[in-house]
Order: sequence, then C-alpha cells, then structure tokens
Amino acid sequence: MRLPLLVAVCCTVWAFVVRPHCAEAKARHFKWEVSNMFWSPDGEEKVLIGINGQFPGPTIRARAGDTIHVELKNALHTEGVVIHWHGIRQIGTPWADGTAAISQCAINPEETFTYRFVVDKPGTYFYHGHYGMQRAAGLYGSLIVDVAEGEEEPFKYDGELNLLLSDWYHESIHTQMVALSSKPFRWIGEPQVPSHFVHPVFVMWQTVKMLDHDRIEFVAAWILSLLINGRGQFNCSLAAAHTPGTKQCVTVNRQCAPVVLPVQPNKTYRLRVASTTSLASLNLAVGNHKLTVVEADGNYVDPFVVDDIDIYSGDSYSVLLTTDQNPSSNYWVSVGVRGRQPKTAPALAVLNYRPNRASKMPSMAPPMTPAWNDYAHSKAFTYRIRGRAGTPPPPASADRRIELLNTQNRMDGHIKWSINNVSMVLPATPYLGSLKLGLKSTLAAARPAETFSRGYDVTRPPANPNTTVGGNVYVLRHNDTVDVVLQNANALAHNVSEVHPWHLHGHDFWVMGYGEGHYDHGRDAKTLNKVNPPLRNTAVIFPYGWTVLRFVADNPGVWAFHCHIEPHLHMGMGVIFAEAIERVGKVPREAVSCGATATALMNGAHL
Amino acid sequence: MRLPLLVAVCCTVWAFVVRPHCAEAKARHFKWEVSNMFWSPDGEEKVLIGINGQFPGPTIRARAGDTIHVELKNALHTEGVVIHWHGIRQIGTPWADGTAAISQCAINPEETFTYRFVVDKPGTYFYHGHYGMQRAAGLYGSLIVDVAEGEEEPFKYDGELNLLLSDWYHESIHTQMVALSSKPFRWIGEPQVPSHFVHPVFVMWQTVKMLDHDRIEFVAAWILSLLINGRGQFNCSLAAAHTPGTKQCVTVNRQCAPVVLPVQPNKTYRLRVASTTSLASLNLAVGNHKLTVVEADGNYVDPFVVDDIDIYSGDSYSVLLTTDQNPSSNYWVSVGVRGRQPKTAPALAVLNYRPNRASKMPSMAPPMTPAWNDYAHSKAFTYRIRGRAGTPPPPASADRRIELLNTQNRMDGHIKWSINNVSMVLPATPYLGSLKLGLKSTLAAARPAETFSRGYDVTRPPANPNTTVGGNVYVLRHNDTVDVVLQNANALAHNVSEVHPWHLHGHDFWVMGYGEGHYDHGRDAKTLNKVNPPLRNTAVIFPYGWTVLRFVADNPGVWAFHCHIEPHLHMGMGVIFAEAIERVGKVPREAVSCGATATALMNGAHL
Repeated sequence: MRLPLLVAVCCTVWAFVVRPHCAEAKARHFKWEVSNMFWSPDGEEKVLIGINGQFPGPTIRARAGDTIHVELKNALHTEGVVIHWHGIRQIGTPWADGTAAISQCAINPEETFTYRFVVDKPGTYFYHGHYGMQRAAGLYGSLIVDVAEGEEEPFKYDGELNLLLSDWYHESIHTQMVALSSKPFRWIGEPQVPSHFVHPVFVMWQTVKMLDHDRIEFVAAWILSLLINGRGQFNCSLAAAHTPGTKQCVTVNRQCAPVVLPVQPNKTYRLRVASTTSLASLNLAVGNHKLTVVEADGNYVDPFVVDDIDIYSGDSYSVLLTTDQNPSSNYWVSVGVRGRQPKTAPALAVLNYRPNRASKMPSMAPPMTPAWNDYAHSKAFTYRIRGRAGTPPPPASADRRIELLNTQNRMDGHIKWSINNVSMVLPATPYLGSLKLGLKSTLAAARPAETFSRGYDVTRPPANPNTTVGGNVYVLRHNDTVDVVLQNANALAHNVSEVHPWHLHGHDFWVMGYGEGHYDHGRDAKTLNKVNPPLRNTAVIFPYGWTVLRFVADNPGVWAFHCHIEPHLHMGMGVIFAEAIERVGKVPREAVSCGATATALMNGAHL
Repeated sequence: MRLPLLVAVCCTVWAFVVRPHCAEAKARHFKWEVSNMFWSPDGEEKVLIGINGQFPGPTIRARAGDTIHVELKNALHTEGVVIHWHGIRQIGTPWADGTAAISQCAINPEETFTYRFVVDKPGTYFYHGHYGMQRAAGLYGSLIVDVAEGEEEPFKYDGELNLLLSDWYHESIHTQMVALSSKPFRWIGEPQVPSHFVHPVFVMWQTVKMLDHDRIEFVAAWILSLLINGRGQFNCSLAAAHTPGTKQCVTVNRQCAPVVLPVQPNKTYRLRVASTTSLASLNLAVGNHKLTVVEADGNYVDPFVVDDIDIYSGDSYSVLLTTDQNPSSNYWVSVGVRGRQPKTAPALAVLNYRPNRASKMPSMAPPMTPAWNDYAHSKAFTYRIRGRAGTPPPPASADRRIELLNTQNRMDGHIKWSINNVSMVLPATPYLGSLKLGLKSTLAAARPAETFSRGYDVTRPPANPNTTVGGNVYVLRHNDTVDVVLQNANALAHNVSEVHPWHLHGHDFWVMGYGEGHYDHGRDAKTLNKVNPPLRNTAVIFPYGWTVLRFVADNPGVWAFHCHIEPHLHMGMGVIFAEAIERVGKVPREAVSCGATATALMNGAHL
C-alpha cells in the first residue's frame, strides 16, 4: 500500500501518543434503542437488556480519529440507562464517558441522549452499561478502532476474529443487587451448573450439528453461564432425556448456537478478545495453537508467545494465531474460569478450518484451563506484558502517590468492599455537574486518606472490620503525575484474598510493577519498571499483593477508578478522581439536568 | 359524644361536599424509603418493592381535613418511582397525584420528593405505585381516613378490620412488561397453581397451627397468588413431602402466615376492603355471615345486605358484619376470582371468635366463590349500589358527552388495548409541566375522537383490528359537567369480552347507569339514574355492556382515567383529562424538573 509521504510521516511520529486526524476522519452515526427483551444466551430464556433487539449490542467499527455519534434512546420501562465506552479516553469530552452519577445523569425512560466522542487510538475496546449492575444484565458490545486510513498496524495478519467474553446469571440483576445489599449478605454465587451435568464437549457436538440441520429436539438439563459473543452452551442434552424432572426444549434456540470462527489454513489471524464479565476472571486457549500477544487495552505490547491468555474483566487483548495445524480437523476454543473455584463448564467455540464443515467434531479434546488457583501461571503471563518499542515512557517521577488499601468489611450487618476503610457510595447528582458548578456539600466529606497504616497486616482479616461509606473523591491537579499503589489484603474470612482488576476512566496508565505483601515504598519503589512498562486502562492486583500504576492527570473531568467486578463495585470498591475541574469545557446541559445541578441551572447558574 | 353546636352544624351541612377543617385538622408526617427487598408473600421468596422494609407499605391513618406529608426517598437502584393516593381527589394539589409522566416526573434513585395533600373526605382508600407496573411489584398500602374529630359516621360499629386484597405473580414485573410488549404477544397468565395442588383448607389449617407453635417443617408444593394484607397461602404442604422434585422449606415463613381477624361475639365490625390487584376481579365472603354494604370508594352508599361482595381492582368498600353466629367456632373469610376462569385457589383468612384459639379449625368449609362467569350475580350486586341519602345529586344535564369505545387491537404484531381506536402512550415529559408551560407539541396529536361509529358491532371482534398509538388527551373546560360513556366490546378472539374497572383521578363521578350492547343515547339516556346514583372513583364495564359516568370538571389539573387492570393500562387502555390548566396553581418545580419542562425552566420559563 503506497501513501503520500507527508501522511505517513505524520502518522508514524504520533503513532503512540495522540493519534491525529491523519487522512479522512469520519463522523459515524448510530441510532440505538436500549430495551429489555427475551433472550436465551445459554438455552434458558430470560429477560436481558439489548440494543436494537440484539444481544450483545451492535459492534461499532471505526478508524482512529473518527467521531462516534450514538443517539441513545432509553426504551426501558422504569429504569435509567447510560453507556460507558470502555478504554476510550474521552479527551475533552468527559461528559460522554457514560458513568451514571459521575459524568452524567442517567437517561430517563423515553428520553434520548447523544454520545459524541473521538476514538483517538486504534485498538480493541468495548462498551457497556455503567448504572446499577446493568452490565451484568447484558448491556454491552464491541467497539473496534482500526488504524487511521493509510496507516498500518505494527504487525501483519490476514484476517480478524472477534471474541467478546462475558458471564451470565439466571437471576435478574434486580435480585442480584438486592442480594448484595441484604442483611445478612447473600453472595450471588458463581455461574452455576445444575445437577444434570453433561460434559460440554458432548453437548457442543450435538449443538454444533445444528449448523447443518434445521432443528433438533433436546431436553433441558444444565445451565452454562460463560458466554462467547453472547452465546453459552445449551440448557439441553440428550443424556437428560432419561433424567426425570428435566423439562423439554422442543426446539434448539439459535440465540445460543455455538460461535464458529471460520479460518483458512496457513494464514495468520488477529483474535480480538475482550472481557466484560460481571465476576469471572477467565483464561482462553485454542487447541494446539500458540498465541502471540500484540495488544492490550488499545496499546501495543512487546509481542510474546503463550499457550493461553488470562483475561480479567475490563481487559482486552489482541493475539495473533497462525493456522498451521492439521487442516482436516477443527479445533476448540476454550474459555474457563480463573481465580475462583469454577462452578461452571468452560465456554467453547469452534475454530473451523475451511473447507471442513463447522459441525465436524474436533479430533482433540478442548484445552484444559489451568487450575483456578495456579496464580504462578497468572503472574507469569501478566508479568510478561511490556510496552512495545515506541510506547511513550512514563515520567521519571511522580508528583503525588495515592495508596489504596482494598479490604472487605462490615457495616451495620452489610458486607462492603472499602478503600482505605471507606466504601464508595455515589451521589444522586452527578459529580461532573455539581463540581463544575461548585455546589456546596459535593466535597463536604473529609478528604479521603492517601495512605493507610504501615502496621496493617495484609495477610490476615482486618483487625477492625468496621467500615463507613463516603464519596472517595480525590481532587487531582492538572498535569500532575500520579502514582497509585493498589494494595490487596486478606478478606473477612481467613486465608482468602481475591483478584481485583482495577479500571481507570479517562486515561491509560503505565503498569509500573507488581509485588507480594505490604508495599514498602523505600524497598519496593526501586523494583518498578521505568523502562518499558505497558500502557493499559485495567490492571489486576493479585491476592495479598500490590500493583503500582502511574498516570498523568492531563484530561480534565471526573473519572471513576474502580474494581471492574460488577458486584464489587456495587459493594463500594472504587474511588473518584476529580481532575482539574476548572479546565473542563462547557458541559452540555442535557448531560447533567438532574438533581441539585438541575435546580442550580433553573436558578440561573451557568455551566 | 357532645359537640359544640357550631362545629356540629358546620360539619353536617358540608358532610357530603367538601369536608372543611372542622375541629383540629392535623399535619401528619411520614418518612418513607422505597426499596427492593426479598419477601415471601406466598411462601416462595421473590424480590418485591417495599416501603421502610415492610410489605405491604405502612398504613396511613388520618382524619378528614388532615394534611398528609410523605417524604419519599427512592432507594431503588436504577428505577424511578412515584406513589398515587388512590381515591384522594388532590383538590388544588394536582402535582401530588403521583402519576409518572402525567402529574410529575418519576423520582430518581437516591432522590427524595415530598407529597403534601389534604385528605378531605373520610373513607377507605389505598396508595400504590403508578409507574410502569410497580403496583404489581408490591408497591401499595392502605390509607384510611376517619371522620373529622367530633363527627360521626352515619352507621354504628364496635370495631374495625382492614383487608387490602391483591394478587401476586412469581415472574418479575420486568418480565411481565416485556411479555406484554412482545411480538408475538405473551399473556402473563392468571395467577397460577402448579401441579401439586392441595386443597387450600388443608394447607390453611396446617399453617394456621403455626400461630400456636413456633415453626413447622413443610415442603414446597404449590403457589397461591391471591393475597390478603400481603399474605398468600404457603408454597408448602404436608402432602408434597411425598412428591419427588419439590423443594424443602426448612421453616415456615411468617411473611405469609395467614391473616387472623380477632372478633368478640355479638358485636358489629366494619370491614374495610380494598382491591389493588394487578389483574384479578375478586369476590369476598365470610362463612355464615351477612354483609351490609355502607361505603364504596370513600362515599357512603344506601346500606344493603348481601352474602358476598364483588370487588374489582381499584374498588374499596366498607361492609358491616355482626358476629351473631355460634361463638364456639371460627369462620373462613374467602376471596376468590371473578370474570376470568380462575387458575388459583381462593385466599383465606380466619374470622377468629375470641376466646377461641386462632388455630381452631373452622367447623364449616370456606364459602364458595360464585362461578367466575356468573355475571348476573355480579350485576345484581353492582346495580344495588346507590348513593346514601344526603349524597349530592348530579347536575341535571351534561355540557359534554365523551364516548369511549374499549377495544382490543393489533399494531405491528403487538396486541394493544385502544380507546376509540387509539392506544394510549405516555410522554417522556409529564403533562402537568409541559401543558402548564404551553410547550409545543405536547398536544400536537390530533384531538382524540369523542365518539365512535354508530355502526360498530360490539358483539364481534373488530372488523378492522389495526390501531395506532397516541396521547388520548381530552382538554376539559373549567366546571363543565362531563358525561363519559364507557362502551365495552368483543376482544380480538370470538366470544370474548372482558370486565374493565375504570378509575378516574382527581374526582369522584356519579355512576349514572349500566346497560347491555351498544349505547344508544336516544334510547338509553332516559334509563340513567338521576335520583340517587352512587359517587365513586372506580366503575366497571361488564362484558358487551356500557356504563355512563358524570362528573364536574371542577379540579384543575391533568388526570388519568384508565382501566385499573395493570397489564391493560400498560397495553394502552386509558385517556388523559387536561382540565382547566390555566387555573392550576403554582406547580412545585421539583415535581416537573425533567425532560422538556426542565429544559424550558433552565431557559427561564416560569411555572
């Protein structure tokens, strides 16, 4: 492909910083309607939240520099809605970040709100609801940004495959939210398999056959709740026909037909993989195929080859896969659970070497997911992720260090997740409006702590398990370089410490390093990677460990920073960065016309 | 009781018109929080909407002339909420009527709205959600207004018993709303009894025994979905212990313990009975006892004696019952389904003659509910309801007649209920604000028709089943006397015509008459009752029949008039009366700060 020299130079020089509108940036318009609908993601029909009658929602495909316009109508009956564009930094458009109570008012039923933002950087992204637990209700989809016209990726491939991973509960999010807020606390449980469990390969084979036939009579037997592109395995199996008490499925439902990935032999494919799970940490492998990791969260990484990848909620990756195996066979793509004892079977898709039929049974069993508690495997993978040559390096030092201790606590009989012993609650009036207008009491609460006791024993349950709730708003100065130390600890029960993937809105951060135990700045700061840390928007803290992130507060707005596990966020695991509010441009009134901000605007205030 | 003469005269003269604040009218303050919670209304645990952790919500008890203040906090996670005070006319306070999209904006999560209104007239009322189908989710409670201090009811009694009737689905209202809006349409079904049906009396007896013991082990077997004061029978029975596949209830749940009505022998009790069912038309009887009907919808009626009463959704009655039966026995109160083939067992309560134990098994079987389709029985009851002497008579003639044909129709594969062939949809911006501000396009739709074709054959499915949607807003002139002819017809299926109880907000109306077939003004007007029609706020149309109502448009505001069956309203069965908007007082801004009204107010408009 030949390019005019000027464009090529322009795009190369800026390739890793801010992608300018080289060549023809476009406005891309979408008209969406969000509504509840019946769907059978895993064979059992439930009500979920879809967009334009689809689940998952439509894929947005654009080029770097394009402006996306999504005219979003809320057609839910009584619920508000917003959509967050996960990984898009929203430079200059903080009101389009789609976080209820933070960057905007929830869109009321029958109302329409238009999101307008620039996708400045190529990469694998996704979007999802960010109000209550609407993400877990199915409100998500893919957002893929190609390099600008005339540019090239720093790696070659012949074709692309897209996998959006999620998990799916049979209980509604309303029930889930009540359970998590209940006294006594009720854990919503892992995605479950009921008693009539049948090996998924057998079921898959039966269901893949559907691709060649019209309808097959199956009998309901089990629930599988990991989804690939919104599809889980059937709540059906032949074996269950002989099991009393199971109910008849008269027909197979195409909504949960297995995903088939058609490929040609001896080609290289880019698999775009993103996880919008509510809870599950996942691992993905493709039978007999190596994977070369080349992108993480919309940033290029130094390529490395693995047998499988770990992927946490909020993560996205691109991996290259070469179809160099026996072309007469198909192969399983297998997605299993990490970090929690799995109670569900892996999700499976079919890598279909053409011209084999999609329904041709793979000759090999699906790859086994590593043991859920093999953290050495997880760390080995995560620690290998480095910025690709050309990734801008982090500033040499930070202006401020914020240490965030993650603990599980109790409050009045409820269970909460807390940061420095304060569990985050969101206000009725979104911060972006109330802070911009300087409304009283928005920041009334005490400044949240920036550190925690050096004597805190992260290996034991909290000595004082009691917590309080608060706003957890950290005010950041424009262009300060901020280090965040995420410190994990033991939960309420002995010998339990969980994985938490933290996601930052409005920025990428450099992942400076990981370690075990209590972070000690004097000792541990020198171990940080200042040479080639990867740029990301989501980073994990491992059990009993710490992770250090660095970012530059160069994007005025109000940004959420939180554990991406939906129930954990619901239970308070997050903070807010109020960044250089005085520099935020004119906030569109329609984004913040509710609560105290609406009252102030009606009284003559100006944004 | 002795009263100062002046007060007595004052209260007597105005007794049936507007109850003045004779004696000490009080302000009564309530602080409520609406939230989702786990509850087991019939033994099976579900999520419903409660108030202050209670289901049904707290009973409001006040005296005529009092001002009620309800400070309502919405603690739902993502849903708006409003509460309608059913039967309270809201004279001068149309913004407190609690109808989303009509009289106010839904209260957003975490926001608080204060309802302030006068209960001007003694009677048996209730309150309930009026947004989406939140009433069916359990958002309701009793509102009982006693005569003003120093006044007396026109009948005597020794004690009072309160029965709030409802029905209960195991599917969430979100699922119900999606089902009703689906293409193809899915009927949500009657309240159901599953296969392991056990005669309710047997189960009741088992469960009543709980009153004397602490806990009993039962086994889940069936679902009963008629509720008395929020309690249905257990999802448990001893018989089911031998039925494989049923699940164990380890303990009996007091949330569904049967209602016990303790009485002394040889006394007269006032039973206040109100129905807030989503769907079911009901009949109530008390074994071996006669009932004297004395009040309907907060208005006194000419007393008459019956064995049982029919009660439709939206109705309330007071009946007097004398405990003149064998005092060594208890008696069943039985509530069964009318107008639709019942798929559920009757709800039962115990009339407990003291000092018998509450758990003493009544010696007689519960009274049988009349056959569901015995409309002659229903009509005989309904036609006997007349205004008590002293009830103000209706104006002799009407200024305007509005004829409303009720039909079931199709639209783009959906099923709708339509009025004069237009199915009502509500706007994003509540009418009270948009009409008060004269916002464009609020009334943009064509004026709805005030009559329908004289040739329409009400005995057959609609010749043209297609319908459209619209606002159905009728603009009423101040103080006009309006006749409404509610005309029933055949539904989409042959030989089906349903009962519809229509409820008017903001007013009582006189029920002028009922008839069969197509209303013919020339022929039928002369049959109307101009002498002693009852004043009510809810009136039924019988299958294939008509009902004529008369009211005076003397209460400026925007008022819903609709079928009180929740799924029918959801499917469009209603109209709006926009009444003398120019005379509406200053609408509190917080009631209408959303949508186009909020925008106008921010642009400097004044209410």
